[in-house]
Amino acid sequence: MRNPDNSDTPFREYILRTSKNNFSKIILALDLQGSPSSKLLRSGRSLIEKTAPYLCAVKVGRPTVLNLGTEKTRALIKTSHANDLPCIIDDKLGDIDEVNSAISQAYFNLGFDGIIVNPIAGWKRGLEPVFKTAEKEGKGVIVLVYMSNPGASDSFGQLVLRNPKEKPRHQYEIFAQLAEEWGADGAVVGATRPEIVRKVRSQLSDDIQIYSPGIGTQGGRVLQASKAGSNFFIIGRSITRAQDPERAAHNFARQSTAEP
Amino acid sequence: MRNPDNSDTPFREYILRTSKNNFSKIILALDLQGSPSSKLLRSGRSLIEKTAPYLCAVKVGRPTVLNLGTEKTRALIKTSHANDLPCIIDDKLGDIDEVNSAISQAYFNLGFDGIIVNPIAGWKRGLEPVFKTAEKEGKGVIVLVYMSNPGASDSFGQLVLRNPKEKPRHQYEIFAQLAEEWGADGAVVGATRPEIVRKVRSQLSDDIQIYSPGIGTQGGRVLQASKAGSNFFIIGRSITRAQDPERAAHNFARQSTAEP
Repeated sequence: MRNPDNSDTPFREYILRTSKNNFSKIILALDLQGSPSSKLLRSGRSLIEKTAPYLCAVKVGRPTVLNLGTEKTRALIKTSHANDLPCIIDDKLGDIDEVNSAISQAYFNLGFDGIIVNPIAGWKRGLEPVFKTAEKEGKGVIVLVYMSNPGASDSFGQLVLRNPKEKPRHQYEIFAQLAEEWGADGAVVGATRPEIVRKVRSQLSDDIQIYSPGIGTQGGRVLQASKAGSNFFIIGRSITRAQDPERAAHNFARQSTAEP
Repeated sequence: MRNPDNSDTPFREYILRTSKNNFSKIILALDLQGSPSSKLLRSGRSLIEKTAPYLCAVKVGRPTVLNLGTEKTRALIKTSHANDLPCIIDDKLGDIDEVNSAISQAYFNLGFDGIIVNPIAGWKRGLEPVFKTAEKEGKGVIVLVYMSNPGASDSFGQLVLRNPKEKPRHQYEIFAQLAEEWGADGAVVGATRPEIVRKVRSQLSDDIQIYSPGIGTQGGRVLQASKAGSNFFIIGRSITRAQDPERAAHNFARQSTAEP
């Protein structure tokens, strides 16, 4: 089952097309909290509808799925598709194969077009089935290369000696290499660390896009991350909690497509 | 809110008590798949009720929660508590602080007594709020130190140079140290790697228990892991798909408490 409203478009082309059409590299991060779920769905739909002309995709977090429940999540994804925007689930999935298969298949069945995974689980009897299913169904897989929170530097920034004969490499360089080897559609690198974005961008081939969360509230800046090589900017509260979300999205969209 | 049926017992003492009472170190891993959810709940409850006298806890995976939905998951946890068994959610949670807070709080509100987390997210604006909430509510936090699948060796087994002046250490040694520093109640090390269990056991203080999945179908053995130092054995299909689950659980329980 491919994207219901884009039945012949694999994820990678889908998001490039919407980005080009809307002159935007902004992905709206929806983290809907509170209750009742019907009110959350209304607020999520309204945010998508207001900002859709200035977005290239929508990213939904796990708490949102939890708070909405299955059917209302499906409805939210439909709103995203009705506005011609792919919808990504930010799961950071990293478990053994059977669990990864069950969770990713459930998301794809709900209508999600792409999923974020945690490469620490490895390939063999780990993430392999997620990539295989995604390829078959035209879905996208985006690999976590460097998280945006301060504590992430201890692990994603550590030096690793995978081969004792080679020079030590940073963990994020190894994860970026895995993204390449595994055929990922994208790599997540926090906008809070532009120097890391620059290194990962120079390492990855051009057809793997860099997705950067952490813009705004967490301290990252669009122009800085864009100069460093981020391709898409994941923005949540700076749009959703703005007095005028439409205007905020529009401003970010213009920054995201300005010549670096 | 502490364990509803064990209102004064923090997780760590709760599972040690049930283990002692039932002469068992076996944790039943419930991975309920298929539909309808009412049938899954019946089958999960029946499995718990049949095997409860030979268990010390129940571990529920994410696909089970997804397939059951919120209210039936709550009912399953109630069955676990009614049989005087703590119930652990195997989430491998590793996100930024806000997501970690929302997800772990939702699980604790449902009645789960403990949660498995992925230490790669780090402490600062990462896992810190999970540990703080757990401590306040008497819940348990169990840190993933080495996954059970073959592909996990690339990352969990890699050599890391966190301090350039020190000798490189294995990733799992670093994660075990974090489990200690963060005040975890347990560490997950796959029973498929008894030599790693032995090293981690010698590194951890006695009050941090080692939880070992991968027994049976995945190739790990109770006696071998027990000799190496595993404290609890997580077993799924070898019990749930046995012709006689009660008898299978009983056999594993006897192996788990035999003198090593």
